[in-house]
Amino acid sequence: MTVTVAIDCMGGDHGPAVTVHAALDFVRNQQDVCVILVGVEEKIRPLLANTYHSRITVRHASEIVAMDESPALALRNKKDSSMRVAINLVKNGEADACVSAGNTGALMAISRFVLKMLPGIDRPAICAILPTAKGHSHVLDLGANVDCSPEHLLQFGIMGASLVSAIEHKDRPSVGILNIGAEDIKGNEVVKRAAELLKESGLNFIGNVEGDGIYKGEAEVVVCDGFVGNVALKASEGLAQMLAAFLRQEFKRNLLTKLVALIAIPVLNNFKKRVDHRRYNGATLLGLKGIVVKSHGSADVFSFTNALARAAEEARTGVLSRITERVALQQPSQEIS
Amino acid sequence: MTVTVAIDCMGGDHGPAVTVHAALDFVRNQQDVCVILVGVEEKIRPLLANTYHSRITVRHASEIVAMDESPALALRNKKDSSMRVAINLVKNGEADACVSAGNTGALMAISRFVLKMLPGIDRPAICAILPTAKGHSHVLDLGANVDCSPEHLLQFGIMGASLVSAIEHKDRPSVGILNIGAEDIKGNEVVKRAAELLKESGLNFIGNVEGDGIYKGEAEVVVCDGFVGNVALKASEGLAQMLAAFLRQEFKRNLLTKLVALIAIPVLNNFKKRVDHRRYNGATLLGLKGIVVKSHGSADVFSFTNALARAAEEARTGVLSRITERVALQQPSQEIS
Repeated sequence: MTVTVAIDCMGGDHGPAVTVHAALDFVRNQQDVCVILVGVEEKIRPLLANTYHSRITVRHASEIVAMDESPALALRNKKDSSMRVAINLVKNGEADACVSAGNTGALMAISRFVLKMLPGIDRPAICAILPTAKGHSHVLDLGANVDCSPEHLLQFGIMGASLVSAIEHKDRPSVGILNIGAEDIKGNEVVKRAAELLKESGLNFIGNVEGDGIYKGEAEVVVCDGFVGNVALKASEGLAQMLAAFLRQEFKRNLLTKLVALIAIPVLNNFKKRVDHRRYNGATLLGLKGIVVKSHGSADVFSFTNALARAAEEARTGVLSRITERVALQQPSQEIS
Repeated sequence: MTVTVAIDCMGGDHGPAVTVHAALDFVRNQQDVCVILVGVEEKIRPLLANTYHSRITVRHASEIVAMDESPALALRNKKDSSMRVAINLVKNGEADACVSAGNTGALMAISRFVLKMLPGIDRPAICAILPTAKGHSHVLDLGANVDCSPEHLLQFGIMGASLVSAIEHKDRPSVGILNIGAEDIKGNEVVKRAAELLKESGLNFIGNVEGDGIYKGEAEVVVCDGFVGNVALKASEGLAQMLAAFLRQEFKRNLLTKLVALIAIPVLNNFKKRVDHRRYNGATLLGLKGIVVKSHGSADVFSFTNALARAAEEARTGVLSRITERVALQQPSQEIS
């Protein structure tokens, strides 16, 4: 069985220069995948020049959604954007998943409009992988929903657990809820009620996880509302960048420290590789009737290839049917409680 | 003029072993300070053995608030706890400030009950210093309030700006609000409304700051509700610890990397010094009719000394009157709007 991934080639800070090259690497490295390169044909074709590959198709789309464009306007006016056409390919079954490094708000709005939500899921959530002391964890929502009800947070838990159990072949991944204290009494009313729902859900719910608990790897799935999740994610990114800059500055301080840096390069590179956020690129828009993966806008070829791999893996392992089955299981007990 | 700091010597993970030694260092290094060591006398006296200092007083308190004790119970039952007695000393004017490394919830509850709020301030907020690419920023609230109204966030902005203008002698420190996008339309309703209030407040309001903007140093004061602030702070702590552990592991991987580590030690130490969180120890409980500084529970002597220095500096520079004046200034325009 082959998996077909539709790629919004015009999205992201670098457009086809990154997306098309990543697609070529992806097809070269994975034998069971096809790609449909969606975008302005005259921008894409030249990059394929000497590459003829039976698993690569180009689909022309005349418009581009700008990175700073209003999602509502993009949805209304750009019916032939590379983003929209790529999502349409998922809708009509030509592709099993799509990937875009474009405008997050527009991707969310168009995906939701075109694909619709899975039964039993009210809202999509952005789910990303973060590195932890124990490996990695999945955290959702990271910015799709600024206000969430306890029921939404429960749905995020179900979706996250279904995703992890599918792609990591785990029976009952642990699920925690992001909170400001380890005790049950802590947190706001929404989080407290959500914790109760998660406790009754049959998921492997381990209770509250504090901010530092994310990186300690206390739960395989961490649930939070999109406001808190987005702030935590971006604060982490900002801190990591600052620390990296400080470390660079110290090693560049004078001739002696530069010499030390030369000697330490292999060790520092191993460290860098280990925390390289590009390895974790690709956030899934969970809850839709279709697989949509959002790449970081600034992604390079290596990074974007990882987002493509993530999309393909989710298609291969049937994440959507896994979520649907798990949600169906949930409904009766929810009605009783 | 001397400044007197009351110290809850029994609080924190290490109790008098840390707090009393830090007090001695503090008195040795700052000529204009007195300390009142509050706690179980027979635990404190032996640590002073050969140290007689005219600026050190011991005040016996028979009870101790446990780190995991319910704040409500500590407030109701432990009238003679070291924490409570230290706060009482601020209330009755014997001390200009107090510092505790004890139970945060109890410190908040007892401070609020004993000292009461400043006029025009509804709720206390926890304000801490975080290192940034440009130096450091003050962030509040970090966990005292899980739900905040726009008016509360405005008050946090006023208090934070007053604090910075007092202790850093700055006329109009920049104030930002933590949000999930740089645009005005982003965020939840509370944050949007708070941004409007801050805009009209006369403060030097620079608009939204995203999570990474904290560490970029985009604003000297960053305002947020206690849930988001606490998660962001703890996520940052967790990430920093994880990265430090990874770096250590890489340098300890084998004999060769250990050799490299030996050579790189001076550079790594400079880096470590630069991001040492102990330098920033001491979060202020702002909004009370008295200066109360909370030290990290796990603080060591160096760390706790910094919290003491922070409390003294706030007393010296008249932070409380600065806040009171600024709030009074606010009232009329708020009534008009």
